[in-house]
Amino acid sequence: MHKIALIGAGRIGRIHAANVAAHPELQLAYVVDPVGTSAQDVAASYGAKVADLDGALGDASISGVIVASSTDTHLDFSLRAAQAGKAIFCEKPIDLDLARAEASASKFEAAKARIFLAFNRRFDPHFRSLKRKLDAGAVGKLETLHITSHDPSPPPPSYVAVSGGLFKDMAIHDFDMARWVLGEDPSEVFAAGACLVDPEIGKLGDIDTAKVILRTASGKLCVISNSRRSGYGYDQRIEAFGSAGALRAGNVTESTVEAWTEGGAQADQFQNFFLDRYAAAYKFEMAHFADMIARNAAPEIGYRDGVAALALATAAQASMQAGAPVAL
Amino acid sequence: MHKIALIGAGRIGRIHAANVAAHPELQLAYVVDPVGTSAQDVAASYGAKVADLDGALGDASISGVIVASSTDTHLDFSLRAAQAGKAIFCEKPIDLDLARAEASASKFEAAKARIFLAFNRRFDPHFRSLKRKLDAGAVGKLETLHITSHDPSPPPPSYVAVSGGLFKDMAIHDFDMARWVLGEDPSEVFAAGACLVDPEIGKLGDIDTAKVILRTASGKLCVISNSRRSGYGYDQRIEAFGSAGALRAGNVTESTVEAWTEGGAQADQFQNFFLDRYAAAYKFEMAHFADMIARNAAPEIGYRDGVAALALATAAQASMQAGAPVAL
Amino acid sequence: MHKIALIGAGRIGRIHAANVAAHPELQLAYVVDPVGTSAQDVAASYGAKVADLDGALGDASISGVIVASSTDTHLDFSLRAAQAGKAIFCEKPIDLDLARAEASASKFEAAKARIFLAFNRRFDPHFRSLKRKLDAGAVGKLETLHITSHDPSPPPPSYVAVSGGLFKDMAIHDFDMARWVLGEDPSEVFAAGACLVDPEIGKLGDIDTAKVILRTASGKLCVISNSRRSGYGYDQRIEAFGSAGALRAGNVTESTVEAWTEGGAQADQFQNFFLDRYAAAYKFEMAHFADMIARNAAPEIGYRDGVAALALATAAQASMQAGAPVAL
Amino acid sequence: MHKIALIGAGRIGRIHAANVAAHPELQLAYVVDPVGTSAQDVAASYGAKVADLDGALGDASISGVIVASSTDTHLDFSLRAAQAGKAIFCEKPIDLDLARAEASASKFEAAKARIFLAFNRRFDPHFRSLKRKLDAGAVGKLETLHITSHDPSPPPPSYVAVSGGLFKDMAIHDFDMARWVLGEDPSEVFAAGACLVDPEIGKLGDIDTAKVILRTASGKLCVISNSRRSGYGYDQRIEAFGSAGALRAGNVTESTVEAWTEGGAQADQFQNFFLDRYAAAYKFEMAHFADMIARNAAPEIGYRDGVAALALATAAQASMQAGAPVAL
Repeated sequence: MHKIALIGAGRIGRIHAANVAAHPELQLAYVVDPVGTSAQDVAASYGAKVADLDGALGDASISGVIVASSTDTHLDFSLRAAQAGKAIFCEKPIDLDLARAEASASKFEAAKARIFLAFNRRFDPHFRSLKRKLDAGAVGKLETLHITSHDPSPPPPSYVAVSGGLFKDMAIHDFDMARWVLGEDPSEVFAAGACLVDPEIGKLGDIDTAKVILRTASGKLCVISNSRRSGYGYDQRIEAFGSAGALRAGNVTESTVEAWTEGGAQADQFQNFFLDRYAAAYKFEMAHFADMIARNAAPEIGYRDGVAALALATAAQASMQAGAPVAL
Repeated sequence: MHKIALIGAGRIGRIHAANVAAHPELQLAYVVDPVGTSAQDVAASYGAKVADLDGALGDASISGVIVASSTDTHLDFSLRAAQAGKAIFCEKPIDLDLARAEASASKFEAAKARIFLAFNRRFDPHFRSLKRKLDAGAVGKLETLHITSHDPSPPPPSYVAVSGGLFKDMAIHDFDMARWVLGEDPSEVFAAGACLVDPEIGKLGDIDTAKVILRTASGKLCVISNSRRSGYGYDQRIEAFGSAGALRAGNVTESTVEAWTEGGAQADQFQNFFLDRYAAAYKFEMAHFADMIARNAAPEIGYRDGVAALALATAAQASMQAGAPVAL
Repeated sequence: MHKIALIGAGRIGRIHAANVAAHPELQLAYVVDPVGTSAQDVAASYGAKVADLDGALGDASISGVIVASSTDTHLDFSLRAAQAGKAIFCEKPIDLDLARAEASASKFEAAKARIFLAFNRRFDPHFRSLKRKLDAGAVGKLETLHITSHDPSPPPPSYVAVSGGLFKDMAIHDFDMARWVLGEDPSEVFAAGACLVDPEIGKLGDIDTAKVILRTASGKLCVISNSRRSGYGYDQRIEAFGSAGALRAGNVTESTVEAWTEGGAQADQFQNFFLDRYAAAYKFEMAHFADMIARNAAPEIGYRDGVAALALATAAQASMQAGAPVAL
Repeated sequence: MHKIALIGAGRIGRIHAANVAAHPELQLAYVVDPVGTSAQDVAASYGAKVADLDGALGDASISGVIVASSTDTHLDFSLRAAQAGKAIFCEKPIDLDLARAEASASKFEAAKARIFLAFNRRFDPHFRSLKRKLDAGAVGKLETLHITSHDPSPPPPSYVAVSGGLFKDMAIHDFDMARWVLGEDPSEVFAAGACLVDPEIGKLGDIDTAKVILRTASGKLCVISNSRRSGYGYDQRIEAFGSAGALRAGNVTESTVEAWTEGGAQADQFQNFFLDRYAAAYKFEMAHFADMIARNAAPEIGYRDGVAALALATAAQASMQAGAPVAL
């Protein structure tokens, strides 16, 4: 059993703690959180101990560290874990500041960091199946890509204020998805944004709706659609258009039950809460982390990927402000 | 242009009149109906004349006769048209009395009748596509069959009283469908009926709900489900289970539009009115009749088919009353 | 933590072992299996000990016993566990012999047995959602029910020979489902069976295909369709027709991915292996067993339900042999 | 019966001729085509006469003129028909030259032209149903719109060479659709194009793939996706995202038949040929033209709409060439 330290005992940290406990090769050893009661609560559930960061990183028996603390600490905590020689599972985004993230790359390299940037969508069974079929040539050569990513309802303005904005906070998932499915880096981004959902978001200088076009060096085109509020649930879809057909991953419903009444056939609700929608993805992420630790597997998503997604988000922001495409 | 006489200017007669007029090879010449104003109305719309039965049958220029009058006249009018040498398009059922229908067979044969029993479902593009794929071996050898046939809402008791009962009036379509898709005649029928929808129907000695199992000599099994009221629209479906898969024909919606709201994805309503649902089938029926007249095509559904469907309906009625399977 | 003994370390026993281990309130303490290596293997995975039946039942710290051994032992082992005062989780069917199962009822009562008959379909989230909506009146009063239950491919003849036959081995799930969804006991059954899939099954005196009609005292009708081989995957569907609409639970696909090519839109495969299809159901079963142990919850499915399903299977067998409906 | 002259007896002209003949209020009187045999063929089928343009326009009994000749003649023939006082049904696009189309507007106004620009998609029952539900508030206030319009396979280079380019030839339908569904005019367009399908198209200076973002003055955003070759059929879809949900119009399949095999559920093919896919739309277009003639209905789509769609296509072309958004 490989011992794991969890940094951050909030909502997502608790998910990871449960998945560590359920994994046959991992054991939760420490929980670190500035809010002592949170740490205590999570630790008690899984037979772990509460510790501070130095204590956890200083224990040589700890193989891996999960960084699920607030975004502004991701970079520093990951680097300290790297320098302590631990394998790292870091929540997205790596940071909100592209220059800082780029500047830190050499430090991670110097530490020979084994860091996994946990973009959950890449581990979702539906998107993974699409990617596998695409790579197997089911629809020929990929030409264009549509990603739809609409949240059920907007976050509170207090969250928006510290979120880094729609592109870095929400669309960053889609930028990573685009890179992964396209199989190459976009070389140009054009972003159109609007505040159509909640005027409070606009007052904070942010947007709640966006349509983005990416273009790669080889000429592939990708459209991303984002909204902070769908009004119909969590909308997470991909359409990949190839030279011999198209692949689509649709939304997941709560059940297969349909009600047929005078109005027509009504399907069950979409799975709305992201922790439910991506529950399987979080488990597969942890299985991958176990592979990194137990079998020295290379991380599927590394530091450079985290920087590349942040670079796209930063360029999208710049494009929107300039009203013109931005080259990368 | 081949001249046609229409007998019966009611709801279904008007559909056939329009399809005659729209067909490039057919021309509506006479309309016969005991209600003079109905006949006049239909005749005026399509440049035809009102006539009585003798007048229409006596005109040697008439190639075909459509019998769309009340059920109790189907047999007599068809026979008279046969004896006048006309091609016949006869609405279902051929009669409500099996003995009488069987006894008349020799008279039709004697007249070398060219009679087409117009079971609309066999000409529906959806069911026809299923049958074509089945015959092409898309799912191997057919083993069992499920037919669902539920009406949107029950007919008035006054109609039920003269309808011949659920099996002869409504399920007869499904008995014909079963024979057609199975490709052989059932040798045994077990029918369970109930009055669950409208107690008035029960007071008339009829049922409004039935589940029937047919078995063929080669061992194929078929289930038919009937209801006089679905509560959700016109439910007309087939599932054909073969040795290498299954084929299904589903319900037809008004449009492809879905509404996604908090409750889930809502499809558009099913096409509810049988004249809409089977509009294409009626056109294809008329094209087939034109083939019979213009190119001497053999009728796809003949007198013997009409009798066979009636025999199944009669046996189902007997099975229900006896509470036991009935052999055919 | 409540201690559990598992009897039977085969395929299904291993599923239950994993679910016990994953449940926060349960702990696997003993594994009993005549094949020592199987028991040892499962015990080692979850920190349990190998024991014989007497040893497991004799340990007063054991709260619950899972009977997942071969069918012919279900009744005896469950009774011994009951007499030892343990809560019981018993795999279906309770027995293959109705008379014996009925005769044993008084012994279970005498032992004040707390026994849960684990029909997995009642715990499937899809069917459970259908039942919940039905009970909430989403489609009015239930009138008729269609259950489709087709296996992907037939079992080997060696299994068929000791299975008890299609009705007791396979359709028994659907008889229990019918009782649960209908909300009342069928009073009559008519079963038509055939051997269409594998002649070897017929040589063993069994069938591989069946269509069954059930009728309840209040007049509800239910159709069950069974096949040992679908050719297209595991087909597990329900259609419930009510006075104001219908509810349907459809098949579960491996993912939401569709491939659009020249042939049309191809959905992903159905989940084919029953252990995958009902993985969630097994977890919910274990959660229910934990409720029985930790909070004295009444079993959702009891001994009498196991007997009632067996009685229906036995009556269906008799109906098929007699070629007539059988009253219950 | 109102008499109609048809100009252009090619593929689309023949569709309109049949719909005139089938309409109870319209009668095809003249067919005009430079290819005499084509004109003769169509005229003979529907009891019309062959004429030249002057002859047709000079006959005072002609109420309406259908301009279905080549694109470069649309403007001139329509204007001449307007000056002759005829109601006009003009195929899209009004012209390929925006300046010329704008300059002609005053001439049409001077002639008090009653001209209907026949964009078929607005008359498609599926899109019309979406628009009706949207206007009825089914999903609240419209915020963003996605239009997917992919052809089954690319036209021959010889067609591309005279087509006016992807934006004016193909996407012009989608620009009109966008204006119609959005309910307001876009004020900015950004277009990204690529040649991914057929290098021959690129050699002609055209593109075969495009993604376009439109923005309206009120802040609504619209994405259009175009491809000259889908590889899976004719893809014609709309997603309209509102403040309380979304409406989607999907593709139309040949039938409702599904084949279930080991690979999963395969739906029937998409309706691939635009004359089939929009067959109903062409009929509804003609019914609207009859309303214009018989009941003086205002054209649902007028000259200004034709110019506005052309202006958007022209701006999209300019945006693509400039690599920057273009304001309108």
